[in-house]
Amino acid sequence: MASFENDDLSFKIGFILFPNLTLLDFAGPYEVFSRIPEAKVFLIAKDIGPIANKGGLTLIANDNFKTAPQLDLICVPGGMGILAASADEETLAFLRVQAIKAKWITSVCTGSLILGAAGLLSGYHAVTHWSSMDILPLVGAIPVDERIVKDRNRITGGGVTSGIDFGLYVVGEIFGSELAEAIQLMMEYNPKPPYKSGHPSEAPPAILERVRYLGHAEHQRRLDFFSNLKLR
Amino acid sequence: MASFENDDLSFKIGFILFPNLTLLDFAGPYEVFSRIPEAKVFLIAKDIGPIANKGGLTLIANDNFKTAPQLDLICVPGGMGILAASADEETLAFLRVQAIKAKWITSVCTGSLILGAAGLLSGYHAVTHWSSMDILPLVGAIPVDERIVKDRNRITGGGVTSGIDFGLYVVGEIFGSELAEAIQLMMEYNPKPPYKSGHPSEAPPAILERVRYLGHAEHQRRLDFFSNLKLR
Repeated sequence: MASFENDDLSFKIGFILFPNLTLLDFAGPYEVFSRIPEAKVFLIAKDIGPIANKGGLTLIANDNFKTAPQLDLICVPGGMGILAASADEETLAFLRVQAIKAKWITSVCTGSLILGAAGLLSGYHAVTHWSSMDILPLVGAIPVDERIVKDRNRITGGGVTSGIDFGLYVVGEIFGSELAEAIQLMMEYNPKPPYKSGHPSEAPPAILERVRYLGHAEHQRRLDFFSNLKLR
Repeated sequence: MASFENDDLSFKIGFILFPNLTLLDFAGPYEVFSRIPEAKVFLIAKDIGPIANKGGLTLIANDNFKTAPQLDLICVPGGMGILAASADEETLAFLRVQAIKAKWITSVCTGSLILGAAGLLSGYHAVTHWSSMDILPLVGAIPVDERIVKDRNRITGGGVTSGIDFGLYVVGEIFGSELAEAIQLMMEYNPKPPYKSGHPSEAPPAILERVRYLGHAEHQRRLDFFSNLKLR
């Protein structure tokens, strides 16, 4: 049935949500994208309704893989739930089908590994959370140690907070620098990190050691999973 | 009834949620605080259940003002919904009662205006979103143009993204710099804003003009509301 809604003319941005995602991976670019006047943001998951996260935070998906429209830009956040999402054939199929016509295919943090599991980063330069950079080659991607990596129509952001830089960069690329600058001002984004430890290259060695130790078991699970993944 | 749950020994952090808050005001400090091993985070609103935001994002409150425990740290985010929250006597009463025994009373962005409406910033140095700094004196606060302002047990953060700097600062103050540095590394927080426009002092004049124009009506509503507010 033909639709005459004005919405169909808007630029459609879809976030793929899943259980146990990292809130800030999503919230950074969401805050940026939801301020684009000519865009409409869709919150999409396998099932419409609440998406449980450990720790008690619950987001609500308004669309599932059947009700979601063709997107202009897909954005996949990361988090502890990426292995389950990467093992879910419906999620991967949705990404593959959307990717055929989407103008931009993007991710923040370990969301790039889900794109990778769907075969969408094969032969592309990409970035992910610093602790998972060694997993990118397992999905055929070429890791680049930058905060934002653009290769053709793939744009990937690094870990968690990079989603803010990523979001502003994406708006600048697609809608021009004036809107991106205005949104940066609205969000008062003149960051002043209280410590110098936001990247392995600058963190004190003992801090780096501690964080690696805390993430070791999960990193091993990811290595195992992606080593055994058959990419289509 | 006496409780023997171990949780009672944890450091209790409560976010006050309300309709039409700014997601990133909340998500920045949430992402930091939820990584404190010895803390428990509570999502509190007037009513348990979904909290509607314009634009389709829905968060879920797990506690209401009756079920919430005494908090060690209160954190109030900001957003378009602050006037409704500041006019809500139940919300203000909850903040006032909690503030008697809470160790820390904090806010991000225009959340400070809700604290102010509750009378909790009277005589305190504080900060808010840059566009609302002239409203702070209307609630008896002394505005300070810094990204984070600490005055006794009040810690307020500036606009939106300052919540990340604020969260790390708070963790450093309460739990020590090593944990804060580890969390900063986990969140890969070595920001690289793509533009130089995150603060009125550095934004291009035309961009500042545009953002002020877009926010003018809401700013006027805030001025009117807080000018007429009778502080108790």
